[in-house]
Amino acid sequence: MIALAQRLFDRLRADGFDGTGITRDSFGAGESRALAIVEAEAQSLGLATERDAGANLVVTLPGTHPSLPAIACGSHLDSVPQGGNYDGAAGVIAGLLALARLRTDNITPRRTIRLYALRGEESAAFGRAYMGSSALFGQLSAADLALPHLATGRTLGDCMREVGADIARITRGERLLDPASLAAWLELHIEQGPVLTARRLPVAIVTGIRGNFRHRNVTCLGEAGHSGAVPRWLRHDAVFAVAALLTELDRSWQAVLAAGDDLVVTTGVLGTDPAEHALARIPGRVGFSFEARSQSPATLEAFHALFVDECRRVEEERGVRFVLDRRIDTDPAQMDRTWIERLSAIVRDLGLPDEPMPSGAGHDAAVFANVGVPSAMIFVRNANGSHNPQEAMAMEDFMAGAEVLYRAVVEGAAT
Amino acid sequence: MIALAQRLFDRLRADGFDGTGITRDSFGAGESRALAIVEAEAQSLGLATERDAGANLVVTLPGTHPSLPAIACGSHLDSVPQGGNYDGAAGVIAGLLALARLRTDNITPRRTIRLYALRGEESAAFGRAYMGSSALFGQLSAADLALPHLATGRTLGDCMREVGADIARITRGERLLDPASLAAWLELHIEQGPVLTARRLPVAIVTGIRGNFRHRNVTCLGEAGHSGAVPRWLRHDAVFAVAALLTELDRSWQAVLAAGDDLVVTTGVLGTDPAEHALARIPGRVGFSFEARSQSPATLEAFHALFVDECRRVEEERGVRFVLDRRIDTDPAQMDRTWIERLSAIVRDLGLPDEPMPSGAGHDAAVFANVGVPSAMIFVRNANGSHNPQEAMAMEDFMAGAEVLYRAVVEGAAT
Repeated sequence: MIALAQRLFDRLRADGFDGTGITRDSFGAGESRALAIVEAEAQSLGLATERDAGANLVVTLPGTHPSLPAIACGSHLDSVPQGGNYDGAAGVIAGLLALARLRTDNITPRRTIRLYALRGEESAAFGRAYMGSSALFGQLSAADLALPHLATGRTLGDCMREVGADIARITRGERLLDPASLAAWLELHIEQGPVLTARRLPVAIVTGIRGNFRHRNVTCLGEAGHSGAVPRWLRHDAVFAVAALLTELDRSWQAVLAAGDDLVVTTGVLGTDPAEHALARIPGRVGFSFEARSQSPATLEAFHALFVDECRRVEEERGVRFVLDRRIDTDPAQMDRTWIERLSAIVRDLGLPDEPMPSGAGHDAAVFANVGVPSAMIFVRNANGSHNPQEAMAMEDFMAGAEVLYRAVVEGAAT
Repeated sequence: MIALAQRLFDRLRADGFDGTGITRDSFGAGESRALAIVEAEAQSLGLATERDAGANLVVTLPGTHPSLPAIACGSHLDSVPQGGNYDGAAGVIAGLLALARLRTDNITPRRTIRLYALRGEESAAFGRAYMGSSALFGQLSAADLALPHLATGRTLGDCMREVGADIARITRGERLLDPASLAAWLELHIEQGPVLTARRLPVAIVTGIRGNFRHRNVTCLGEAGHSGAVPRWLRHDAVFAVAALLTELDRSWQAVLAAGDDLVVTTGVLGTDPAEHALARIPGRVGFSFEARSQSPATLEAFHALFVDECRRVEEERGVRFVLDRRIDTDPAQMDRTWIERLSAIVRDLGLPDEPMPSGAGHDAAVFANVGVPSAMIFVRNANGSHNPQEAMAMEDFMAGAEVLYRAVVEGAAT
């Protein structure tokens, strides 16, 4: 099985290498070639393959009771430009390994097992994520389908049509896949952060996928002035105001963590206005982004309220004004409790440490979970983050994760 | 006298109006026309005028003891582009009023009194301030003279030569004016900050001109990462690090003020790197400027040491690194203690409140003071800051300041 996995990773890497990293463009040629590579391998293993109405690849191992809801596994095959070889592909290959092993061992499960090699999970090309899974559940809007590709300008709808998706049904918002037809969605994925490496865990079971609220651009308006001529008591310095705000929110963040709640907070964009800033000018305007992510809607709500309160407090203290743009929300997704327990038990049976953790990054599993499919995820240790050519997953860790997935699929298909 | 003042301000305004504000370009045509306006008025009042080797206008009222060091007063006549009518010009007009009054009243002082209408005080055109007064004391370097005009690209040296300065002597670093030939430098100037307005003071005597240290660009290096996938304990967030640093320095600044020391602190430029920042990216790099100004070299030294210490502390706490560029220093200038007391006494004699204050902005008086000329300044209340067309000085306040200057000149010339 490790030889099969290595061969598939190698083929995908050779095909997707762009000179710097891996590029398998969403609803584009690179992604299509990746699907074809996996499809050819599946067929050579004697597995049935098809393309669904969303142009995703589906590999099927029929069960003895095909009318029962099926066990679905898989992940996505697209990548960001100049990305890595494992983000997405690892979950598809792990799923194929599970089906190949059942096929080789000549085991026919009770429930049908399906592997999905999804398209279009990455938001790099169209600015929207989870397009492949969203299309399956009738969740792409007309506005989504009109999104232009950041490089080519061609619309998402045109690109989807070109790779074979039934764009008429997708435009109508039809469900291409009935959530009730699936007993589970099981997704293996590399961890995109450093936690497993830091905690020396080969794999981890995901408890939920964080939701978030975002303000793309908050503006702090103070009062510009001569840096020498205005004493502190007459200043309305936008930089010191934003620094005070962020420092207080950082302290509150620590308090939230100390209380055992899940939260990450990020201001990824921050700056004085280049049109007016100067070394000797008290800054009258600072813009910044603000994002908080948590598994818990209540934590997000509470932290947003705190954010607004702190803005008001700093306004009063420092005579500045915060102008908040529209709040954008993404709902958290809970992984299925029964499946988390089942997967954790498997991890422990394998003699591996079991420390469930949330996923900070988004995944197709969130889309499946939020339409009611009991969903679960297995993270595999990976150094250097994702979305870059330095992704580093050890094959040993991958095989451990694939073993967990295999056992889970077998257990799930037997019940 | 108020009619004369109003007429001169009006003429200067009419001549310098650029459609938006006032432009009297340093060592340029607008500045030269302003000198000519003042010179014509002086001559019509029967005062002797000349241009010195630095091409500044000098108006002289000879004393009975011309071999004694003279009392000098004045300010500069250039402005920033689209600036206001009072920054600089108020001090020249107040000086002319003093000489006109003595002349009208037919009073011959003991010491000679000289009014200087200086050129090139503003740094807007060439990036260097106090060029006119620096030239007088042999303090323009070859590098200074080679500075290109930000708009035209012509060098400072060429522009000075064109308005009549003796560029050969200036290039050799010769003193065009012997500091020992002056008993005092007295400069009236609008306040460029809001303190007098806030404290309801028409005028104030300046205790000193703040020096400063500057770092044009400090970089905080953290570690970039996915905003969802990296928990707080594994982050090295450059934005939160800089916010923590600035918040702590703000607190220390308050402590310095509470101890009665003079200090202003400014980060005028701050920002994540547009080449890498993103809403969902933990910022790995933030750049910022840092400036502190004080009348006290000891306070500046202590605050710089504190700045470096706090950088180190935040580095340890947050696993980031601060890279400091070259520290640039400008020495503070002390105003002459005897003159401060004399001017304060005059202010009190006039029934005005007397609250001495430091000048945060730089002035030609700093150049005179630092070559050993006993120097003093009178600030006149002015709303809306300077360097903009909204400068707002009431004529009543100006006349109060001019009265202080007149009495000071008379007292100084009598001793």
